[in-house]
Amino acid sequence: MRTDSKAEVGDAGDRGRAVGSLMALTGDMERLDEYMRDKRFAPQLAVWALRGVTRVILANNPLSGALMLVALYWASPWQGLLGTAGLLTSTLVAVILGQDRAEVWGGLHGFNGMLVSLLMGAFNSAGDWYWWLLLPACLGSATSVFFFSGLSSVLDRWDVPVAVFPFNMVIVLYFLCTGPDNPYFPHRLAVPPSSAPPNVTALSVAEVLQGVPLGVGQIFACGSLGPSLLILAGLCLYSPLQAVHALLGSAVGTLAGLSMAVRHECLYSGLSGFNGALGCMAVGGLFFSFSWRTHLLAIASAFLSAFVDIALSNLLGAMGLPACSWAATLTATLLLLLPGGMSAYRIPLARVRAPERNLRSRSRWEAGSAAERNSTDV
Amino acid sequence: MRTDSKAEVGDAGDRGRAVGSLMALTGDMERLDEYMRDKRFAPQLAVWALRGVTRVILANNPLSGALMLVALYWASPWQGLLGTAGLLTSTLVAVILGQDRAEVWGGLHGFNGMLVSLLMGAFNSAGDWYWWLLLPACLGSATSVFFFSGLSSVLDRWDVPVAVFPFNMVIVLYFLCTGPDNPYFPHRLAVPPSSAPPNVTALSVAEVLQGVPLGVGQIFACGSLGPSLLILAGLCLYSPLQAVHALLGSAVGTLAGLSMAVRHECLYSGLSGFNGALGCMAVGGLFFSFSWRTHLLAIASAFLSAFVDIALSNLLGAMGLPACSWAATLTATLLLLLPGGMSAYRIPLARVRAPERNLRSRSRWEAGSAAERNSTDV
Amino acid sequence: MRTDSKAEVGDAGDRGRAVGSLMALTGDMERLDEYMRDKRFAPQLAVWALRGVTRVILANNPLSGALMLVALYWASPWQGLLGTAGLLTSTLVAVILGQDRAEVWGGLHGFNGMLVSLLMGAFNSAGDWYWWLLLPACLGSATSVFFFSGLSSVLDRWDVPVAVFPFNMVIVLYFLCTGPDNPYFPHRLAVPPSSAPPNVTALSVAEVLQGVPLGVGQIFACGSLGPSLLILAGLCLYSPLQAVHALLGSAVGTLAGLSMAVRHECLYSGLSGFNGALGCMAVGGLFFSFSWRTHLLAIASAFLSAFVDIALSNLLGAMGLPACSWAATLTATLLLLLPGGMSAYRIPLARVRAPERNLRSRSRWEAGSAAERNSTDV
Repeated sequence: MRTDSKAEVGDAGDRGRAVGSLMALTGDMERLDEYMRDKRFAPQLAVWALRGVTRVILANNPLSGALMLVALYWASPWQGLLGTAGLLTSTLVAVILGQDRAEVWGGLHGFNGMLVSLLMGAFNSAGDWYWWLLLPACLGSATSVFFFSGLSSVLDRWDVPVAVFPFNMVIVLYFLCTGPDNPYFPHRLAVPPSSAPPNVTALSVAEVLQGVPLGVGQIFACGSLGPSLLILAGLCLYSPLQAVHALLGSAVGTLAGLSMAVRHECLYSGLSGFNGALGCMAVGGLFFSFSWRTHLLAIASAFLSAFVDIALSNLLGAMGLPACSWAATLTATLLLLLPGGMSAYRIPLARVRAPERNLRSRSRWEAGSAAERNSTDV
Repeated sequence: MRTDSKAEVGDAGDRGRAVGSLMALTGDMERLDEYMRDKRFAPQLAVWALRGVTRVILANNPLSGALMLVALYWASPWQGLLGTAGLLTSTLVAVILGQDRAEVWGGLHGFNGMLVSLLMGAFNSAGDWYWWLLLPACLGSATSVFFFSGLSSVLDRWDVPVAVFPFNMVIVLYFLCTGPDNPYFPHRLAVPPSSAPPNVTALSVAEVLQGVPLGVGQIFACGSLGPSLLILAGLCLYSPLQAVHALLGSAVGTLAGLSMAVRHECLYSGLSGFNGALGCMAVGGLFFSFSWRTHLLAIASAFLSAFVDIALSNLLGAMGLPACSWAATLTATLLLLLPGGMSAYRIPLARVRAPERNLRSRSRWEAGSAAERNSTDV
Repeated sequence: MRTDSKAEVGDAGDRGRAVGSLMALTGDMERLDEYMRDKRFAPQLAVWALRGVTRVILANNPLSGALMLVALYWASPWQGLLGTAGLLTSTLVAVILGQDRAEVWGGLHGFNGMLVSLLMGAFNSAGDWYWWLLLPACLGSATSVFFFSGLSSVLDRWDVPVAVFPFNMVIVLYFLCTGPDNPYFPHRLAVPPSSAPPNVTALSVAEVLQGVPLGVGQIFACGSLGPSLLILAGLCLYSPLQAVHALLGSAVGTLAGLSMAVRHECLYSGLSGFNGALGCMAVGGLFFSFSWRTHLLAIASAFLSAFVDIALSNLLGAMGLPACSWAATLTATLLLLLPGGMSAYRIPLARVRAPERNLRSRSRWEAGSAAERNSTDV
C-alpha cells in the first residue's frame, strides 16, 4: 500500500481503529454473537436467518446475508418471499425440535429450507404469486431439518459436513412426488444439457462471458445479472478469496460445458457454472487452508464438479428432474474424505472460518501443536 | 374397568391369574422361548417362523403370526403357500449359515424372505399355482439372508435396524432381472400413481375409507377386506397401540395421496396407505417410547413416508417397478438417526419390545439409571 | 509326484532350487519388491504398473501382468495403448499426490485407471486410433485416483476393499456426461440383455461354451478367444486356484444368463460370464481362505453376481449405459461384510495374498494366535 511520505503518526491509531471496526464487519462476525446473546428473540432469529442465507454460498456473515436477500427481492419479489418463508420455517422448526444451539446460531438449519423454497418457486409453472405454493415450500423446508439432523449423525463419523444434501434430497422427492401433470402443484420439466437437437446457432462469446457471474447467482436460482453481481459483492464482504474462487469455479464450469458441447442456454444462463463455483469455493480456502497445492485441487474440484453436473443433469433430466447441486456436494464430500497428502491441509469442521481467518488460525494452531509436541517430547 | 360392587375377594386371585395368562399371550411372549428351549426342532422352527410372520408388520408374537398366516391363506391359498415357502427357506438358510441364535429365535431371518415370495406372487402374471415360481421365490428368500447379515454389520454402527431393506433390494433386483418380457417368469409392470391420464371419474368416499384398513393388509400384499381385518386383529393381539398407529398411518397416507391427486385405484386398494402405516408404527411406540411428542413425530413420519412413497413410486414406476416399502424403511431409518431432542425417547435396539412394554420398561430403566447415577455421584 | 526309484540325491538340491526359483515367479512375487528397492524410477514404475494390470483380475504378479498386457496388445493395439496410458497416468498421479507408498507399490492405483481407459475405448464409436480419446482417458484415469482415496477412507472402517468402485463410478459418469450424441466423444449405447425382440434363432451350444473363457477376457473388455486364453494363462501363473475359480464363475454366469433367457450375443461374447467370474474369484480363495464351505459360498457369489448383473444391465441399459462390473463389486462387498459363520474364514485385508499362500499363512497364523492365546491364558 502506498502511504504519504509525510504521514502523521497520530492519525495511524485512528485509522487502525477504523480499519478494525471495518474488519469486524467482514469474515464470520463472531463478536456479533456475543453482542446478541442477551437480546430478544426476534433480532436473534433475524441474525440466525441472515447467517443461513449466506450458508447457501458457503459464507457466514449476516451483513452479506442482508445484501444477498436484497438481491433476491430485486430479482423477483415472489422468489424473495418464498426464500424468506423457507428460511424462517426451517430455522424455527430447528428451534422447536431443540437442535444443537451452536448449529442454530450459525444458521446451519436455515439454508437448506431456503434453497428448497427457492427451487420450488423457480420450477413452478403456475406463475408468480401462486400462494398455494407456500404450503409445500414450508413443509419441504421443515422436512429438510429432519434430513439435516439424520444425515449429520452419519457423516459426523468422517468429519464431513452435511452441506446441501438435505436440500437436494427434498427437492428431488418433491419433483418426483408432484410428477409431470400435477393439478395442484404443476412444475416445469428440466431439460438435459446434452439433449438433441444439437446446437445449430453460433456461440455468442459475450453471452458466455456473462454466464460466468450469472453462475454465482444461479447458486440462489437467480438468473439476472444485477442481483448476481450484488450476491458476489456480498460474498466479497465475507471473504474476497471466496469471491475469487466463485468466479474462477464458474469460469471453469463454463469451460467444462463448452468441452462437452452442452446446449447454449446452459452456458448463457450460468447453469453450467454454478456447480463448478460451489466445488471450487468448498476446496479453495474454506475446508482446506489456502496454498498453491490447495489452489490446484480447487481447480480440479471445479472441473470435476462441472463434469459430474453434466452427467447427473443428463441422468436426472431423462426423468425431467434438475440435478441441482448434487454434483458439487458429492465432489466436495469425496475430496474432503481424501486421506494422505492433501489431508494435511484439511481444516477440522469445528475450526472452519472465513478462508482468510483459516490461513492465520492454521499457522497459529500448528505452531501451538508443534510447541505442545516439543514440550511433550522433552 | 367397572367391577361388581359385591365382588368376591377370593375370585380376584383367579381372575388375576386368568388375566395374567391372557396377558402372557399378548406382547412379545418371551416366556414361550423358555418353554420351547428343550423342545424338538420342528415346533421350535414353527415358533421362529410365526414370529417372522409378525416381524413383517413390526410385531413379534407367534399367535398373531398364526392369525396373519390364516388371513393370507384366506385371501389366496397360493399366496399363503408362497409366503410359507419363503418364510421357511430363509429361516432354514439362516440356521444352516450359523447366524446369531437370538436373531433366528426372534424371527428376524424369516420376514424378508416371506415378503420376497409374497411380492413375487403378487406381481406374477402367469396365474396362480404356477409351480415354477417356487424356484425364484426360494432362491430370493435365501438371498435375503445374505443381504440381512451384510447390511446389519454396516447399520449396527448407528444402532439402526436392517428392517426390510433386504426385501426391497432383492425384489427390485428380481423384477429388473426378469425384465418386462421374460418367457419363464413373466410379471406385471407397476403403474406410477401420478401417471396420465388424470382422474376423470368422481371419487367414491366409501371406497377411500375402505382403503384405510386395506392399507394394513397391503403390508402383506393382500388387497381383500376380510383378511386385512384379521391381520389387524392379530396386530391388536400383539399391541393395541400398534394397531391404532397402523390405522392412523394408513389414514394419513390416504390423505397424502389425496393431496397429490394420485390415481383413484391407489387410494381404493390401500396402496397409498401402507407406507404411512409402517412409518407411523415404527416411530410411534416401537423404536421410540410413547409420549405426546413421539405421537406427533409418528404422524410426521406417516406423512413423510407417504409422500416419499409417491415420489419413489413415480421414479421406479417409470421402469415398471413397484416402490414396495422403500419409503417407510428409509424414512424410519432417517428418523432413528435423529440426534438431539428426540433421541431422548429413542429405545436402544436391544431393548425394543411391544410399545406397552417399552413404556413400562423405559420408566423402570430410567429410574434404575438415575439411581445408578446418584450412587456414582455420592 | 512320481520320482525315479534311483533318483540321485545330489540332484534333489538342484531341482529344489530350480522349483524354488520357479515358485518365486508365481504368487505375489514379494521378493521382487526387496530387489527393486534400490533401482531407478522407470523400472520401479514398470513393476508397479504391471502389478496394476493384474489387480484388474484380482491377481498381483508383474509377470502375469506382462502376459496380460501382451494379450491386450494382441487383441487390439489401440486398446493396449489406451490401457497403458490409463495405467501409467493413474499410477503417476498417485505418486504425485503422495499416496500411501505400499498401495502404489502394490499397483492399487493403476487398475482403476486402466479399466476406465479400456472401457472408453471399447464403447467409443469414432473408430480406432481416434487420438482425442486419450484426453478423457487420461483425465478419467486421474480422477479414479481421487475416488479410490476418498472411498478407501470410508470403506476402511469395515475392512472392505475399494476394488473397482472408482472405475465403475468414473465410467458411468463419463458415459452420462458425453451423452448419446456428443460431437467430440461419441460412444455406442449399451443394449439391455433382456431387451425385446426375444430370441428367435436356435442357441449354438459351441458358441455358448466358447463364451466361458471369453468371460475371463471380458474382465479386460477383450472379446477374442486367443487373448482371453493368454489372460487365463497369466492368471494361472499367479494362482491356479484363481484360474479355476475364474472359469467356474464364468460358467455359472453363463448358466444364470441362460436361465433368464438373455440375448444370445451376451452369452456368446462372454458378457454374461465376467461378473460371475469376478464374484467367484473374490470369494473363493482370495478374501476368504479356501475350504469346502468357502467354495460353496464362491459358487453362490458367482450366481448372485451374475443375476445382479442382469438386473443392473437392464436398469442402466434403459439409459444406454453398460453395467460394467458393478454387480460383482457390490456382491463381493456384501459377502465380505457377512458376520457370523463365514467371517471365521475371512482374511484381513492386510494379509490377503495369492489363494495358495492364504491357505498356508492362515494355518500358520492361526497356530500362532492359538499359541499366543495359550501363553496369555497361562
